[in-house]
Amino acid sequence: MKKNVVIVGGGFGGLAAAKKLSRTDFHVTLIDKRNYHLFQPLLYQVATAALSPADIAYPLRAILRGPNIEILLGHVDEINKEEKWLKTLEGNRISFDYLILACGSTYTYFNSPSWENFAPSLKNITQATEIRRKVLLAFEEAERESDPLKRNALLTFIVVGGGPTGVELAGSLAEIALYSLVKDFHNINSSDAKVILIEAGPRLLATMPDELSHESVEQLQGLGVDIRTNSKVLDVSDEGIRIGEEIIPSRTILWAAGVAAVAINKELGVELDRQGRVVVGQDCSLKNFPEIFVIGDQAHFESGPDASSLPGLAPVAMQQGRYVAKIIMREAKIKSGQRPPFNYVDKGQMATIGRSRAVAMYKGIHIKGFLAWVAWLFVHIYYLIGFRNRFSVIFQWAWTYLTYKRGARLIIEKESNLPSIEKFSHRNDAFKKS
Amino acid sequence: MKKNVVIVGGGFGGLAAAKKLSRTDFHVTLIDKRNYHLFQPLLYQVATAALSPADIAYPLRAILRGPNIEILLGHVDEINKEEKWLKTLEGNRISFDYLILACGSTYTYFNSPSWENFAPSLKNITQATEIRRKVLLAFEEAERESDPLKRNALLTFIVVGGGPTGVELAGSLAEIALYSLVKDFHNINSSDAKVILIEAGPRLLATMPDELSHESVEQLQGLGVDIRTNSKVLDVSDEGIRIGEEIIPSRTILWAAGVAAVAINKELGVELDRQGRVVVGQDCSLKNFPEIFVIGDQAHFESGPDASSLPGLAPVAMQQGRYVAKIIMREAKIKSGQRPPFNYVDKGQMATIGRSRAVAMYKGIHIKGFLAWVAWLFVHIYYLIGFRNRFSVIFQWAWTYLTYKRGARLIIEKESNLPSIEKFSHRNDAFKKS
Repeated sequence: MKKNVVIVGGGFGGLAAAKKLSRTDFHVTLIDKRNYHLFQPLLYQVATAALSPADIAYPLRAILRGPNIEILLGHVDEINKEEKWLKTLEGNRISFDYLILACGSTYTYFNSPSWENFAPSLKNITQATEIRRKVLLAFEEAERESDPLKRNALLTFIVVGGGPTGVELAGSLAEIALYSLVKDFHNINSSDAKVILIEAGPRLLATMPDELSHESVEQLQGLGVDIRTNSKVLDVSDEGIRIGEEIIPSRTILWAAGVAAVAINKELGVELDRQGRVVVGQDCSLKNFPEIFVIGDQAHFESGPDASSLPGLAPVAMQQGRYVAKIIMREAKIKSGQRPPFNYVDKGQMATIGRSRAVAMYKGIHIKGFLAWVAWLFVHIYYLIGFRNRFSVIFQWAWTYLTYKRGARLIIEKESNLPSIEKFSHRNDAFKKS
Repeated sequence: MKKNVVIVGGGFGGLAAAKKLSRTDFHVTLIDKRNYHLFQPLLYQVATAALSPADIAYPLRAILRGPNIEILLGHVDEINKEEKWLKTLEGNRISFDYLILACGSTYTYFNSPSWENFAPSLKNITQATEIRRKVLLAFEEAERESDPLKRNALLTFIVVGGGPTGVELAGSLAEIALYSLVKDFHNINSSDAKVILIEAGPRLLATMPDELSHESVEQLQGLGVDIRTNSKVLDVSDEGIRIGEEIIPSRTILWAAGVAAVAINKELGVELDRQGRVVVGQDCSLKNFPEIFVIGDQAHFESGPDASSLPGLAPVAMQQGRYVAKIIMREAKIKSGQRPPFNYVDKGQMATIGRSRAVAMYKGIHIKGFLAWVAWLFVHIYYLIGFRNRFSVIFQWAWTYLTYKRGARLIIEKESNLPSIEKFSHRNDAFKKS
């Protein structure tokens, strides 16, 4: 009898484990609610019209061709740790010998979930195209708006959160206004647009050294971004945002703050850390359940002299995924014995701030500007899964770089947003037969 | 005082007119409800996961850079022919000296509008990605379905309408099942999928000669498509479709039949033909309103010995757009005199039926198979607007052709369709800082 390994989540961690277990004697089931692996670090480029969704997403079935790997589209609903099975919302019940949970994290609006209606976060492709729509529509509406106050609110773009996503979003938005759209409009000057980056803490990119934080501020200011650190958001509405006594009118607010744990964690009945992540042992497994592993953003893995958790980075998730797969394969051969602990190899950190601008650190070396940007390009292209995407992305980046144009700046209607009476279809069905 | 030309619709006709009037002494306003020109003939390739939306859509502002051209995103709501102004739903009121209506056509479900809920038509990008989602999800659901009857309904794909769109959709769907997905699944054999093409009339591609109709039938049957001519659809539901006494269970029904006029036509207070198109004179203008033109699919333009209308083809719309622009430019110089009539130069017709298969006719010459397919490729790449898209499409077609893979086979969640409680986020936010 082949042993069943069930992996939940096709992100960086789950995928790394599945790849390692491909073409082995285990029967592997990968469950994800989506049919594709999403290259999350480039999602902001879809939101800012530089890339198309298909450039950063690749079908899981195309990545994992191993005959021992089954992929199931579904939402995991219930996990029974003792009897070793789980159930999906769609009605499948699956038994496991080993379970790898790699469900990532999610965003939180702290205690104000209603803010999400006015300030979407960048969590999936639907959200990314929605943000793209919002940003491009703001310019279109400003073009036909005659009231200067309303026009000003339309041309004010606010990004909440000074982590890598917030920094990258703010940089891209500033570039769109300064370069990509500058010739497109008649009644407005797109470079009049203001981009404001709001961070509650004292500095941007808090996980990086001071020096690189300062550098990112300089680079963003070079693009005209207004940076407000030590600024706590007190209210968000369709009119704008409130920080302290100040109200900033804005019609486009984007949320890149507040990482939170996924909801299933609470139902596992195990120890969670303050942020709700699952506390795991040095072999990434649950206490008393050595055949259940939790990896990546979903896990709290203590490391280092201060016993802090490893950060929520792709290399952590990928290394843990491969490590767990190896542990499982090893136990098929050696029936007993201690598991060697997981050991994280630091791969550094980086963030890009638009054209030719970036900051990076690797083993104590700090890199800034063009060189960091080239390093960023190299790493991201290298890790993009699937040759086709990699090639397409290189081509589109080269195009954007040389021409300042953004090819994917399409405003795709949300279905629910279409006017009910479409008097003018504006559609041209011709050419079909030509 | 510059004269105002207002163009409604950024399809093939409206765009051709706007381009011709670019950098002239006229002030041109192009109104469209979308910010992009859509290359409609390739929309079925987005629906069948070969291309991304950005490949076949290009921002109007990027195409029309002329300083005398203003682009307005909006829905035209009211037209006053006598006082020469129009209004948009968004509240803009625009006066015109000349008006060019190029609003295209729309789909009709005859007298059963509720069928649209079960059988989406391919009219815009939102619909195309929705169809892509539906098709790919059907395979995913079949993979986890154990009931053979339900599985059969999931693997039955029905296309209604044997015109070029229907033929192209059916061919692409058969190819997906036969080639693209064949290694993706474990529990189902994707090539067990059935594609059924239903046509009410006696033959496919009714506007083409008999010989090419027969050829298209042979080519489709070569791909395993089940063709039902003389079959009138009597009912459509979420269970399947009824033709005569027969009920065909299917979970994926696509609608490519019944072209209808846009709703504004009825409110113009002018003569319409039986299909609701606006009857125009030999100069494409409205009777008694020589400064109002209607072109492309929206118009009924009598031509030929039998005084039938010109067909709904892109070349007709483009030629009419350029013709009308010339008439307007001419009248700025010559104040009086007769307008020369519009004269259509036949550019032929073509339809593609998947890999290396197509039919085409040009000036009495009939072309079939690989040669027709190469001609189809050439014409479509040539006419794709915007260098970047053209290049990207060539690359992706080459890729699909060589590998049988379809890069854009992503199932993007509809926002309204997301489970309300997302217990498992499966998102991996890592790598952001790496």
